[in-house]
Amino acid sequence: MAISAAEKPYVIGVDLGGTNVRAAVIKRETEEVVGRGDNLPSYAMDGVAQTCAQIVLAAENAIEKAGISRDQVLGVGVAVPGHVKAKEGMVLWAPNFKDQWKGVQIAAPVQEALGLPVFLGNDANLAALGEYAFGAGRGVRHLIMITLGTGIGGGIIIDGKLLEGADGGAGEVGHVIVNAGGRGGNTSFGAIEGEAQISAIVERAARKIQEGRKTVLGTLVDYDRFMLTPAIIAQAAEAGDEVAIEVFEETGYYLGVTLASLINLFNPQMIVIGGGVAQAGELILDPIRRTTYACAIRSLSRSCTIVPAGLGDNAGILGGAALVLQLLGGAE
Amino acid sequence: MAISAAEKPYVIGVDLGGTNVRAAVIKRETEEVVGRGDNLPSYAMDGVAQTCAQIVLAAENAIEKAGISRDQVLGVGVAVPGHVKAKEGMVLWAPNFKDQWKGVQIAAPVQEALGLPVFLGNDANLAALGEYAFGAGRGVRHLIMITLGTGIGGGIIIDGKLLEGADGGAGEVGHVIVNAGGRGGNTSFGAIEGEAQISAIVERAARKIQEGRKTVLGTLVDYDRFMLTPAIIAQAAEAGDEVAIEVFEETGYYLGVTLASLINLFNPQMIVIGGGVAQAGELILDPIRRTTYACAIRSLSRSCTIVPAGLGDNAGILGGAALVLQLLGGAE
Repeated sequence: MAISAAEKPYVIGVDLGGTNVRAAVIKRETEEVVGRGDNLPSYAMDGVAQTCAQIVLAAENAIEKAGISRDQVLGVGVAVPGHVKAKEGMVLWAPNFKDQWKGVQIAAPVQEALGLPVFLGNDANLAALGEYAFGAGRGVRHLIMITLGTGIGGGIIIDGKLLEGADGGAGEVGHVIVNAGGRGGNTSFGAIEGEAQISAIVERAARKIQEGRKTVLGTLVDYDRFMLTPAIIAQAAEAGDEVAIEVFEETGYYLGVTLASLINLFNPQMIVIGGGVAQAGELILDPIRRTTYACAIRSLSRSCTIVPAGLGDNAGILGGAALVLQLLGGAE
Repeated sequence: MAISAAEKPYVIGVDLGGTNVRAAVIKRETEEVVGRGDNLPSYAMDGVAQTCAQIVLAAENAIEKAGISRDQVLGVGVAVPGHVKAKEGMVLWAPNFKDQWKGVQIAAPVQEALGLPVFLGNDANLAALGEYAFGAGRGVRHLIMITLGTGIGGGIIIDGKLLEGADGGAGEVGHVIVNAGGRGGNTSFGAIEGEAQISAIVERAARKIQEGRKTVLGTLVDYDRFMLTPAIIAQAAEAGDEVAIEVFEETGYYLGVTLASLINLFNPQMIVIGGGVAQAGELILDPIRRTTYACAIRSLSRSCTIVPAGLGDNAGILGGAALVLQLLGGAE
């Protein structure tokens, strides 16, 4: 039975990270953030109890900032950077926390302390759900999100619901192998994370500089390759530097190949591109789109748009809120 | 409302191909094939009306063989080699038929002629549903099937339901790109179909023969590469021919990489391998398994088995029957 917005007008989303935890209160009727909590330390290396206590504090802090009372809240959705078994409120693996959190209960202790229903999700998965419920993909029932950053993550929405798989581990978009035997990173050789994560983009630029190609990139970082960032490469590309443009073209190619595979497997209506690297805008989106549309099955790609994310840093928080709305609020 | 087996004890599955069409009657209670129709010509190049008439004939033929009456039949499920829009009973594209059947109605005319409910599905998708309902994956709610033959197809079962995507085109497992820029075939360069379809396997063997490698393969076909088949290569491999073994190792590697990506995306409990090439047995299954388990995320691959298909040539027919049982019979 769905609980109406008249009865419980607010939901809380929490974004848990290896460094900080923060929460926000969202008003169901207007879908506005009405209270944004402070960044609190997540005490990731101190133990599960300490981190759970910080999740509780973060939620209470957001309630206070919103000026509402706890009994007006429908529930709390927590975005966790790890493999989550949602149905059991458990984290199966989260490498940024003490002892990698191999099979720890999170939902139950937080729920008990807060006196509110608590649900968990993987952060990248929930970002996809957030974009579906509140962001670039609002109302698009078949949607995939891919997040480009230090790693590559994502989430898959099928007919308005998050794809979880048998144990809640589905949607590892960064671990799709597109170039068998290629660059590895922390994933298998040739996975898209290895080919397009920030370190791969920087490596691509560093290699071209070392090959003696004509580019401003070398002087921009005083020939210190460890100073290179996607933002600096984007800046050079915007100014017309051909080598910098090539770095985004080559990265976009591997991403486009990945998106083509995703279209052929899932027949989605939209793919949303998020994460820091997506801030390069058309420099990366244009080559992604060209390769995707050239490589996907045409009858499937024709009806699929590729767009930048709409929620930025709030995706996890809003995804947590969206999860609660689906599970308790009757949202579809 | 589900219609009980007491009321309608039989379902019909039809397998439509570019050459033949055949149907069978399945008894719901025992899940047995109780009447198997003849192979009838599908008149693929004569037009939609002619082919629909043959589907009707095939169903009537199976009813006659089973010795039942039409009003004991719950419905008819037809496996079509093409892109099917199931909800509308339409084929959007089927290259083996006259003018490629771009957007033709199939369910409605067959339904009218037979006086029975008729549903369509893509043949590779329905083979997956058949393996889930009656075959190697009976009761395994998260399952992927991949079929190795002239082309590579497949189907994806998520929590007991076929993944259809936005327009019914999902599950094109053969079009996952695993080796960007690699062999093309009829798919994009480096798709798994291009790397592991029958022509790719034969080409791999032919290349090694032409490179002068020590192998019995050349003499087995009197140095006529167009006589090579996966069965001949398997025969040589079984006899210990190292070059022939290498052909299956290399093919299995690309398939294993693909299966790793599928595990990382879908978190399934089982992957079923079907099609003619799968008859090479452990020669191909063993390298597939080694690469899959080496490349997939361990917490996801640990709970996923890789098994040969159980239904052989009957997969399409039984998949059609399974579709009817899900839609009208209350099967899950």
